[in-house]
Amino acid sequence: MSRDIQIGADGRLNHFISLEELPRELMEELLTTAESFIDFATRNTKKVPLLRGKTVVNLFFEPSTRTRTTFEIAAKRLSADVINMQSDGMSTTKGETILDTVKTLQAMHTDTFIVRHSFSGAADLIARHVPEHVHIINGGDGRYSHPTQALLDMLTIRQRKPLFESLSVAIVGDVLHSRVARSEISALKKLGTGEIRIISPRTLIPTGLEDLGVRIFTDMDRGLKDVDVIVMLRLQLERMEGQLIPSEREYYQCYGLSEARLENAKPDVLVMHPGPINRGLEIASSVADGDHSVILSQVSNGVAVRMAVMTKIMGGSSTAN
Amino acid sequence: MSRDIQIGADGRLNHFISLEELPRELMEELLTTAESFIDFATRNTKKVPLLRGKTVVNLFFEPSTRTRTTFEIAAKRLSADVINMQSDGMSTTKGETILDTVKTLQAMHTDTFIVRHSFSGAADLIARHVPEHVHIINGGDGRYSHPTQALLDMLTIRQRKPLFESLSVAIVGDVLHSRVARSEISALKKLGTGEIRIISPRTLIPTGLEDLGVRIFTDMDRGLKDVDVIVMLRLQLERMEGQLIPSEREYYQCYGLSEARLENAKPDVLVMHPGPINRGLEIASSVADGDHSVILSQVSNGVAVRMAVMTKIMGGSSTAN
Amino acid sequence: MSRDIQIGADGRLNHFISLEELPRELMEELLTTAESFIDFATRNTKKVPLLRGKTVVNLFFEPSTRTRTTFEIAAKRLSADVINMQSDGMSTTKGETILDTVKTLQAMHTDTFIVRHSFSGAADLIARHVPEHVHIINGGDGRYSHPTQALLDMLTIRQRKPLFESLSVAIVGDVLHSRVARSEISALKKLGTGEIRIISPRTLIPTGLEDLGVRIFTDMDRGLKDVDVIVMLRLQLERMEGQLIPSEREYYQCYGLSEARLENAKPDVLVMHPGPINRGLEIASSVADGDHSVILSQVSNGVAVRMAVMTKIMGGSSTAN
Repeated sequence: MSRDIQIGADGRLNHFISLEELPRELMEELLTTAESFIDFATRNTKKVPLLRGKTVVNLFFEPSTRTRTTFEIAAKRLSADVINMQSDGMSTTKGETILDTVKTLQAMHTDTFIVRHSFSGAADLIARHVPEHVHIINGGDGRYSHPTQALLDMLTIRQRKPLFESLSVAIVGDVLHSRVARSEISALKKLGTGEIRIISPRTLIPTGLEDLGVRIFTDMDRGLKDVDVIVMLRLQLERMEGQLIPSEREYYQCYGLSEARLENAKPDVLVMHPGPINRGLEIASSVADGDHSVILSQVSNGVAVRMAVMTKIMGGSSTAN
Repeated sequence: MSRDIQIGADGRLNHFISLEELPRELMEELLTTAESFIDFATRNTKKVPLLRGKTVVNLFFEPSTRTRTTFEIAAKRLSADVINMQSDGMSTTKGETILDTVKTLQAMHTDTFIVRHSFSGAADLIARHVPEHVHIINGGDGRYSHPTQALLDMLTIRQRKPLFESLSVAIVGDVLHSRVARSEISALKKLGTGEIRIISPRTLIPTGLEDLGVRIFTDMDRGLKDVDVIVMLRLQLERMEGQLIPSEREYYQCYGLSEARLENAKPDVLVMHPGPINRGLEIASSVADGDHSVILSQVSNGVAVRMAVMTKIMGGSSTAN
Repeated sequence: MSRDIQIGADGRLNHFISLEELPRELMEELLTTAESFIDFATRNTKKVPLLRGKTVVNLFFEPSTRTRTTFEIAAKRLSADVINMQSDGMSTTKGETILDTVKTLQAMHTDTFIVRHSFSGAADLIARHVPEHVHIINGGDGRYSHPTQALLDMLTIRQRKPLFESLSVAIVGDVLHSRVARSEISALKKLGTGEIRIISPRTLIPTGLEDLGVRIFTDMDRGLKDVDVIVMLRLQLERMEGQLIPSEREYYQCYGLSEARLENAKPDVLVMHPGPINRGLEIASSVADGDHSVILSQVSNGVAVRMAVMTKIMGGSSTAN
């Protein structure tokens, strides 16, 4: 979908739309840069002038606490100016198209847009219509992609289990409505992950998923057998139409991650979740807060990864903008 | 309405409420300062410390993307701190009056308020009630005035056609509901524009408009004959009560700016629009995006003009605040 | 309720939840620090790098103009980065708990949360669940406490009448629904105020108030007799259930602060109000704007006090964060 648009004529990262077409080396370079920003966040003064004088616009057509805030924090720590725009206060309500909104903002000489939209492909569409000195970062589009989330998950795994070739990773839950799942599979494959499993009720498995080279399980205990990493998905109740799951209680009984169920996995299994957590629905509280959980580390890595992507895209540019 | 209030006892620009009473030299000085900020926006580091340590409050009692954002970007590029306040989250909902809100904010030692309000005269009213070290900039009030919009339009024309005396400028559309139109006529006259035309259906022409020294046309083809500049107005559908236009389709047929209709004007005519655009309603997409359009240049100039006004008002002050 | 949680193991101020347990010396130290920030606000450049590289989150589960804005201004003048989060755009609407929201934000290595919540005890609850390098400042919780408001009121009194032992202070109005009143009584007692009076209709007096060592009056003229300071409370109409006051007009006749009624107090009495003011309901306009009123000075002091609390909590820390 996004072909070469992410890489500019000079070979530099120009946009960050999807991990699918991104070269593995570039992805690993981003992870390494992100690692250098992790220590940074524990310093007394969390501010570097790398993006001083740059303007970053959070262009959110869909509400989101976590993603908007991490991008805002990441940009401010790099000394960029941040402008927040939520869809409800925006001109699109006056009938303006998305592309007109973007053109208007780019005419203000803003440098990067973080785009969040319920329409799959929105970030890609916008990236194809902006001039080369304007950069688009996908903050999540429809069911399609959420590449910074996937990148932070890869970082979280790599910190603890760096040999992806020998890993078995299970992605559990609502694959059908999840942009995280798609990006995740793409990233894991790029890093050469040994085995990728999907555990989900049949009603939440999109057609064609098998073609991606993943193993599909509808039985959770079997699916979790000896895995190294469990990536729980959030049950997107707000996106479901019709009766895709029997009831919340039955869903938890079949696909909730309880302590008992966790026993199936490797003793040092990592438990991940993109948040926000539905406690007692897709994951037990004791597991979310337990020793295997790296959920809060994912959040910390989220800031570092976004700093890395923004620095890569906007930093070190010696051309006028 | 705003008489001398804009100019302080020391002859300095203290508030920016309306262009009507502003001396021509001061207006041209602002345009020249704005021009110096245009190149600035294309630099790699778009940040100067001119207003470091100043606090600018965006006090918006009416929603607006573009105006709020340009003021915010302009202030941040000058290194000021910006506080955004939208009416829905404000104390006025708890029964506090506008003046109490303003007094409270000025007691926090904020320096400048950008005021946007649906009530004509709101910015003027506030300016008459603040102490001298607090500055008011009109971000658009009711049907009365939108002076930074008019200023950026003058800049856009001056860059391309600096001899206003020889220009014929047509303002097209909903003059009745437009604060842009009033400010525009005032600014064009101050710069000695050769001829100002208004093209509008009779129902959207306010009484007394002829007295302003403009030529009125209800036929668009005749009105556009040989003009140098066309200023399209936004059809303010949300402000109309009752049936002032027959239908959107008929409106476009009579007053929409199509490519065919553009032929009436000079070959190097400029097409302007304050945005957001209603494509296919007041202007054809091909015209909005065409060679004559300077619409996006208007947006860029909007940031430069607001930087100029804020610098003029708050910068260089050597007195304590 | 908040016992020792405010003071860290090293004796430093770690959180600012309530004035009740705070040592008098620490409270007076905060007032003295705040005083040094008052002159600062009148300087031409209101910016110091004391909290550069720190991240402050305004975590508001309840709307508030004044409190949010003063904290934002205070933090920005100290060069901290500020992230605004209003409950309506937050994950709690997706079913996340408050503590999960806070854990997520602290994983982003944010330093301080300003918490505003309708639930009494929210700030205390959160402070008990964050690691030591994360700081909580109570921005008002339910009916329980609003300590920065009380602190700024003490500063406002101390500037003009520093001998608390000889003062008679009357708090007037809706004590039942007021978090300001509770914090106020606590602060006044700590500073050794000679006499504290409560003037209120019987229906708005909470049970057990007498035990706090205050004198209760239901007759306003008698209650105001010879007082040095009058602290008016805001009538919290939005929090009242059922008919607690007869009518707004009757309320004003019995408990509104008119010029005539003011005659009962000392000739140099101070009139205070936390704002926003209900003019003509709890206070006459002429009194609110009159010579005795120090209401706007309270607002100015509000910024200074918040700068002092934040500097005390986050500044000078030499440990990594």
